[in-house]
Amino acid sequence: MPPTAGRPSRRGFLKGSAAAGGAALLAGAGVGEAMASGPDNLPPNVPEWMQSLGPGVTASPYGMPSPHERHIVRRNVPWLTATEESSINFTPLHELDGIITPNGLCFERHHGGVPEIDPAQHRLMIHGLVDRPLIFTMDDLMRFPSVSRIHFLECPANGGMEWRGAQMAGVQFSHGMVHCCEWTGVRLSTLLAEVGVQKPAKWLLAEGADAAAMTRSIPLDKAMDDVILAYSQNGERVRPENGYPLRLMVPGWEGNVNVKWLRRIKIGDQPWHHREETSRYTDLMPDGKARQFTFVQEANSVITSPCPEKPMKFGKGFYEIRGIAWSGYGRISKVDVSLDGGMNWQTAELQKPVLSKSLTRFRFPLQWDGRPLLLQSRATDESGYVQPTIEALRKVRGINSIYHKNSIHTWRVHPGGEVENVQIG
Amino acid sequence: MPPTAGRPSRRGFLKGSAAAGGAALLAGAGVGEAMASGPDNLPPNVPEWMQSLGPGVTASPYGMPSPHERHIVRRNVPWLTATEESSINFTPLHELDGIITPNGLCFERHHGGVPEIDPAQHRLMIHGLVDRPLIFTMDDLMRFPSVSRIHFLECPANGGMEWRGAQMAGVQFSHGMVHCCEWTGVRLSTLLAEVGVQKPAKWLLAEGADAAAMTRSIPLDKAMDDVILAYSQNGERVRPENGYPLRLMVPGWEGNVNVKWLRRIKIGDQPWHHREETSRYTDLMPDGKARQFTFVQEANSVITSPCPEKPMKFGKGFYEIRGIAWSGYGRISKVDVSLDGGMNWQTAELQKPVLSKSLTRFRFPLQWDGRPLLLQSRATDESGYVQPTIEALRKVRGINSIYHKNSIHTWRVHPGGEVENVQIG
Repeated sequence: MPPTAGRPSRRGFLKGSAAAGGAALLAGAGVGEAMASGPDNLPPNVPEWMQSLGPGVTASPYGMPSPHERHIVRRNVPWLTATEESSINFTPLHELDGIITPNGLCFERHHGGVPEIDPAQHRLMIHGLVDRPLIFTMDDLMRFPSVSRIHFLECPANGGMEWRGAQMAGVQFSHGMVHCCEWTGVRLSTLLAEVGVQKPAKWLLAEGADAAAMTRSIPLDKAMDDVILAYSQNGERVRPENGYPLRLMVPGWEGNVNVKWLRRIKIGDQPWHHREETSRYTDLMPDGKARQFTFVQEANSVITSPCPEKPMKFGKGFYEIRGIAWSGYGRISKVDVSLDGGMNWQTAELQKPVLSKSLTRFRFPLQWDGRPLLLQSRATDESGYVQPTIEALRKVRGINSIYHKNSIHTWRVHPGGEVENVQIG
Repeated sequence: MPPTAGRPSRRGFLKGSAAAGGAALLAGAGVGEAMASGPDNLPPNVPEWMQSLGPGVTASPYGMPSPHERHIVRRNVPWLTATEESSINFTPLHELDGIITPNGLCFERHHGGVPEIDPAQHRLMIHGLVDRPLIFTMDDLMRFPSVSRIHFLECPANGGMEWRGAQMAGVQFSHGMVHCCEWTGVRLSTLLAEVGVQKPAKWLLAEGADAAAMTRSIPLDKAMDDVILAYSQNGERVRPENGYPLRLMVPGWEGNVNVKWLRRIKIGDQPWHHREETSRYTDLMPDGKARQFTFVQEANSVITSPCPEKPMKFGKGFYEIRGIAWSGYGRISKVDVSLDGGMNWQTAELQKPVLSKSLTRFRFPLQWDGRPLLLQSRATDESGYVQPTIEALRKVRGINSIYHKNSIHTWRVHPGGEVENVQIG
């Protein structure tokens, strides 16, 4: 019997709409204790935290997670960069559900540390090939017509440490340079109408107000399409490490062009070829040439449960395989899951609504018989693009790249339930 | 000329898709400074925060808002309740954008303070009219098939202080007992299939593990429809004040039945008539009888900008009117805005996607000529329900109620731009 036969019928639990007589999914599988079997503080007895009043409504004007979740934090890899002011930390994907990443856990990438900006003093200058060069205050920008969009944002180096075969310890480090938030701001096209872009204009330069003065060139077509100057993230003001008080949100494009702490946009007729688009954020091909301006984050996906940090610890029985998929080309149209390293594929369920250029949560039910698995997920987007194998990717791009490694990822599940990061094929 | 004539044409900025030659919206209206007009640290000069490195990626494993946003917090009204352990605080709606409420700013309502629960010790017991009474650990619950949904949650007392005409100072206190998050958990119907609900069952009792042992009766039909036992909120574990480690999410129904710190569900054939559904959370009618089990939060809306906390401070010119609408019956189908206290109405733009039983952001562009306004919004939902006037609501329900006051709200805008909370009609 192939591992794929282990999938339980949907009828037993995904519907579950008739409780009386409905099939129990985990009964007899060690889930659910007999009544009154617990220590004194478990039901039907009264635990100690019900026996005295807790803190009232003035205790935390701005709330924080439970102290029991203190281990769920962004983590960095000290050896990865020379200094921590030009470095990266990673989102704990294995501890997250749904598609929204809470602001406190969004990965950070800085090139000169996080500037401490006074929003009353911050300005955005738009100049170059324009009729009316202007300087905007934050008050000005928040007065314009606004728009809110849920979009993922991914560093193009996500997964890049595995190009040559090195395996990160778990999903936080293998895929944690991605997050997904609801961004609110003013459309860049609205501001460009305000300054009046002149005819020969084709590109713009975006500059951050950090110590690196991070600068990237962006084609005007994209700017006019769906780029937002965001001042809010998941409802509240953008966090300092994510660009407070103002950042570019360039939907579906590599994180680096989503310039944080945005202070200047210059309009021109050609790209600027600054440091971050020449010596960095280019893809070195096998023939020694480099691909430049590879902006789109192509379709990608990863299983976040199980994963090395979340093993299959209950032995044989039911597990829900959970993961995330995303594509810079638009909506995810399908995610397939393989239990045998890509020989057989089955379609996962996508959580609705499936939004364009957003994380999409997928789920796949599995009755595990205890045999070893090679778990994979494969995303397809609405453009028809299918997430490639690492083999196919290396064939085209070689092994010199750092960026845009979006290949199918493999977790090896051992009979004991341990999950290991492996590369196959 | 009626105030409604002040609406600018959409062409000038909502499209804005042709930058060259596009109409400038705010040019000449005091928005945007001339180049090089600022102090030394403004563009094109280099501000001080670009002149040294900021903190690196280990500085905040769990991030927080900028110190400049320290004033954006939940606030309570000290005189409202006898103790702060059985009280309420309010979401700062005037400072929020989009539809997602960040976890740290979701309003709190406790009946016995926030219990400090160890998730490893927490249990959920399901018993009563079932075939297999069971006790579940958090590990058990997180193993079941999961679902994620974006839903609003509103205390039925939201706005209740204004039933008799008292006016709260601003939108944080008039409407701030509502939030909207992405909730992930296991469907209650899945667990009810697990325990096997018996034939005569019609109701369930949900009990919290707080010092109040908060209990509410819920019809089984709703439980089987869309109720979730949520362990995640906006991606991460539910916050302590919002029910950590487990809460009921009863989409579209009054906050009180969304029992937090959920420890027990008993299945029965009739409601229990506990304290919170007899002496509280009932609606006292003019004839002295009380409506009981008025669960649904009917269509409601409010303008969050401008509002008393966010006056129209720029004088005459362009403003975007922004607000939120929601309904416990499903999707918002329309929001109308009035500038003249309900004599004339115009349709606002709804931010997509419009989700069922979720906050919906609406926007309406206004060229203000400086005349006084009576700003109102009116929500209609997909069931055809139209948000009523306070007059219509009082006619049916009198003025003895505390709960379910979802009437059209009015902000009076004075010529100087100050915004005042008033009741008309």
